[in-house]
Amino acid sequence: MSDERKNKNYKLKNTHKNKGGMKQEGQKKNVRPGRRPKKISKPSVRISFLGGLNEIGKNITLIECEGDMLIVDCGMAFPDGDMLGVDLVIPDFSYIEQNADKVRGIVLTHGHEDHIGGLPFLLSRVNLPIYGTPLTLGLVGNKLKEHSLFNRAKLHVVKSGDTVRLGCMNVKFIHVNHSIPDAVAFAIQTPAGTLVHTGDFKIDCTPILGDAIDFSSFAKAGDEGVLALLAESTNASRSGYTPTEKMVSDSLNMLFSSAEKYRIIIATFASNVNRVQQIINCAAKYGRKVAFSGRSMVNYMDVAQKLGYLHMPDNILIDIDMLDKYPREQIVLVTTGSQGEPMSALSRMAYSDHRKVMVGEGDFIIISANPIPGNEKTVGNVVDELLKRGCKVIYESMYDVHVSGHACQEELKIIHRLVRPKFFIPVHGEQKHLRKHAELAEFLGMDRKNIFIGDIGSTVEISRDSMKEIAPVPAGKVFVDGLGVGDVGSIVLRDRKHLGQDGLIIIVASLDVYDGHVVSGPDIVSRGFVYVRESEQLLEEVRRRALDILEDCANQNIHEWGIIKNRIKDEVSKLISQKTRRTPMILPILQEV
Amino acid sequence: MSDERKNKNYKLKNTHKNKGGMKQEGQKKNVRPGRRPKKISKPSVRISFLGGLNEIGKNITLIECEGDMLIVDCGMAFPDGDMLGVDLVIPDFSYIEQNADKVRGIVLTHGHEDHIGGLPFLLSRVNLPIYGTPLTLGLVGNKLKEHSLFNRAKLHVVKSGDTVRLGCMNVKFIHVNHSIPDAVAFAIQTPAGTLVHTGDFKIDCTPILGDAIDFSSFAKAGDEGVLALLAESTNASRSGYTPTEKMVSDSLNMLFSSAEKYRIIIATFASNVNRVQQIINCAAKYGRKVAFSGRSMVNYMDVAQKLGYLHMPDNILIDIDMLDKYPREQIVLVTTGSQGEPMSALSRMAYSDHRKVMVGEGDFIIISANPIPGNEKTVGNVVDELLKRGCKVIYESMYDVHVSGHACQEELKIIHRLVRPKFFIPVHGEQKHLRKHAELAEFLGMDRKNIFIGDIGSTVEISRDSMKEIAPVPAGKVFVDGLGVGDVGSIVLRDRKHLGQDGLIIIVASLDVYDGHVVSGPDIVSRGFVYVRESEQLLEEVRRRALDILEDCANQNIHEWGIIKNRIKDEVSKLISQKTRRTPMILPILQEV
Repeated sequence: MSDERKNKNYKLKNTHKNKGGMKQEGQKKNVRPGRRPKKISKPSVRISFLGGLNEIGKNITLIECEGDMLIVDCGMAFPDGDMLGVDLVIPDFSYIEQNADKVRGIVLTHGHEDHIGGLPFLLSRVNLPIYGTPLTLGLVGNKLKEHSLFNRAKLHVVKSGDTVRLGCMNVKFIHVNHSIPDAVAFAIQTPAGTLVHTGDFKIDCTPILGDAIDFSSFAKAGDEGVLALLAESTNASRSGYTPTEKMVSDSLNMLFSSAEKYRIIIATFASNVNRVQQIINCAAKYGRKVAFSGRSMVNYMDVAQKLGYLHMPDNILIDIDMLDKYPREQIVLVTTGSQGEPMSALSRMAYSDHRKVMVGEGDFIIISANPIPGNEKTVGNVVDELLKRGCKVIYESMYDVHVSGHACQEELKIIHRLVRPKFFIPVHGEQKHLRKHAELAEFLGMDRKNIFIGDIGSTVEISRDSMKEIAPVPAGKVFVDGLGVGDVGSIVLRDRKHLGQDGLIIIVASLDVYDGHVVSGPDIVSRGFVYVRESEQLLEEVRRRALDILEDCANQNIHEWGIIKNRIKDEVSKLISQKTRRTPMILPILQEV
Repeated sequence: MSDERKNKNYKLKNTHKNKGGMKQEGQKKNVRPGRRPKKISKPSVRISFLGGLNEIGKNITLIECEGDMLIVDCGMAFPDGDMLGVDLVIPDFSYIEQNADKVRGIVLTHGHEDHIGGLPFLLSRVNLPIYGTPLTLGLVGNKLKEHSLFNRAKLHVVKSGDTVRLGCMNVKFIHVNHSIPDAVAFAIQTPAGTLVHTGDFKIDCTPILGDAIDFSSFAKAGDEGVLALLAESTNASRSGYTPTEKMVSDSLNMLFSSAEKYRIIIATFASNVNRVQQIINCAAKYGRKVAFSGRSMVNYMDVAQKLGYLHMPDNILIDIDMLDKYPREQIVLVTTGSQGEPMSALSRMAYSDHRKVMVGEGDFIIISANPIPGNEKTVGNVVDELLKRGCKVIYESMYDVHVSGHACQEELKIIHRLVRPKFFIPVHGEQKHLRKHAELAEFLGMDRKNIFIGDIGSTVEISRDSMKEIAPVPAGKVFVDGLGVGDVGSIVLRDRKHLGQDGLIIIVASLDVYDGHVVSGPDIVSRGFVYVRESEQLLEEVRRRALDILEDCANQNIHEWGIIKNRIKDEVSKLISQKTRRTPMILPILQEV
């Protein structure tokens, strides 16, 4: 970011005059006749992204206007493969903390982790009011209880169709379809104009529960004029339409009827309440009992049932401990693990590590989910293990047992046409998805200049007739590892990677405090390098080399430990590399006695 | 493996009488009239798998008959994500070493790494004769030169269509289509009957170079009677046919004509000589020069051109150092890195780390390959980086710029119908592929009992009318890390994983040799655990806890180091877990002075 660009920060754009549209009487009063009119700043809205651009997950958008700020979603992301040992990734909240007094509230689109998972970490720093639909807040509440934050949390339930006033902004909750019930988009009226943020959505004209997406509210916003559309891009590379959730029903029915003599085990996302509803419906139809496996499955179903989003026929639910009381063919076990997660219930079953469920030839297993990119291999491994144990397994696209929760290109086009925004910002996706979505908007006739592809931290300022990028706000990826938030950074990760790839050799010696000669050691300890018992000769060579260097330094009166350690590091690295072409971490440790 | 099964090893099956078919006059002479006929052992052939079952890669099959052994292929595999720091995986060759005097030769189906990559490691132990087609042996020769094994190697060039006698077996080399030229299948005549091993293949009726697959030799083998078919299963889950390589040509031509003003960069597999040929043809047509990038690309093209498998118009090839001498729009750069490999040429370009090629808005980049399962994420990341730099990128299935080299279900069916084997063993694939291929054979009418799904080490004994599994041979995965072959095993990998996930804390102290009291230290060194400067307090707590334990042990006259170290490990682990919920490796090191 150049200095020039930095200076533009927080400066309103004054190049265009206010030509009407939004009413600005208050400001016009300042113009005195006879004098050169003072430059009048048109109202503008600033949008900043702390996450969700150039990444899948960690969705969080800030909207600022006339001193008021609101936050759309507060998600987390799962670590990439190179973030070793990291449990989860959350946004850098420092910009929100700095502006906490401006924040009028957090509005939530739906209850998925990539939209609510960052909340406990933000709320533990700033206790901001939260607005969401009943199921979303039910799930948030559970999460806050786990972090002992529930009691002081300010949760405000909003029904879709309702509008909430947050400072100078009105936020309308618009019902959309998605792979979790009670999802909404937002139409945010600001003094600068209306913003539409889709959240995650698809168009499902025959949903399992509730209504189809609220087309009419999108249309109304469009008719009244929309300044900017922020729309999700997850499936922007996919042509056509995402099929309705109902399509899964036919496949499930067919599979249930063909799995007559088997126990049925179905893995799906714990949050996909409608999918589980369909499974329960099938179970009821075919006279099977339903049990849940996996902590998050049990939790989600508990909340969903309590709030009326899951309808359970009487006496159909049994505890997983009761499985043995029923014949196999009267059971449906609904489980987590559809992504092959190593510690999940399905993985444990596959590797014979589940305390309560042993799988084998009598099991008919359906993976009712597609692998999220990056999980293909782990899911494939779980399938292979299940097959080896003799299970029947339905996986990948063998049958239509899964549909996406995200809009494909034709659905995105419909939203763009309904909303007809002046400016467009594709959100929620990697660079390839954002670009595809931008291309789609161009294809629909939008001027390329009116489209902004950002990155995390990016901030744009939008007024009635201009959108420009201004200086970014602080943003980044904060790693959560155990109880530590942010104490694992690039140096720690670099060391973890080095240790994980190559292992280490520790060289310990005690030196005489007076003359620097070796009193004890050097001792060689290695981990993750070679199998020590088979490499005694090599490690003895390392020991001798280290001893030579230490004695040589003492004889030459070199007592600077930094110098001695570096010589040991360099020469031992060279020796090891020559003999093995490997580069373990070399850690010399000296003590004075 | 139960004892009962172990005892069956090397015992010929005598339950069925010889009812003709294969001629066995020699044996019938032993039957004396008037006496109860002595049980006559029919000739049988034993097939063992040292790799390629329940895995992708590391293909190697042993065939033994009447004291002669031959080896089909000798591949390597790339490490899984959990094999940290491992460079490549090779088969356990101990069974071959034990039977080296029986081995009449290694026959190679084609020159891909998963079929020839293990050769240098086997040949460095046992120098066995090798038989292969010209291109295959050209590539093997290059590989053996790198390992200084070329001069004493016994390489025998065989043309497809020819037959080689190896002990009691005749091996016919049958031309097949694949994603590398000069690939063959084998029809192996043994005293027990004929085996057909397909190697990797597809059916391409319009290949770029040479003929379509040699249907007639498969048909002839089928007409004469095939005892067992061993056929590859890579695409056994895919319905339909794999399209012809020629289909790629239309897409490439279309893209070349649309990329008028751009430099074109195409990433593909270095071994896909026919793909590169098509790129060169396009380059010639559109008046562009061709440069190669990536060591393996340069090497493969060098061998292919020398042996006449790649036809290069005069003056079309330029060195990568000459790129700047030509306008962008007159360049095609053919590069490695189609799998997003971190050190590959394309990845370096994407991350601005390539010494000779800077990419940006003037570049049109085509990834002419599909991600191999497990590489989806890294390929996606490379695409995102290229897009961020402003490149046009053609990836995934946006256009038909890639076709597989493996047979889909309809092609497999054709081979099964041509060969009409008595027994069938699906090879080359994970469990899911092997099962799908077995299902396909059953669908074609084969008895399930005549199909064998094995694992590495599995051995079957086949005679004219029976196939049975016998005791497995030694087999496994041997890890190559740098120069070390087999010195990284499960303990080293477990430590690498622990270090990589959680880092380590080293606690060093010097103790008085007489009373065990602390003379120096304890000092705390940590790597990959937390950012030390921000966690001084925690590490000071660790130091104090360790000191307390050491002094306590000295006071209690506990001088057994094992006990002291375990107390430190346990108590420090507990402290760290309480404070951070993490589990770094704790390494206490004591010295006596």
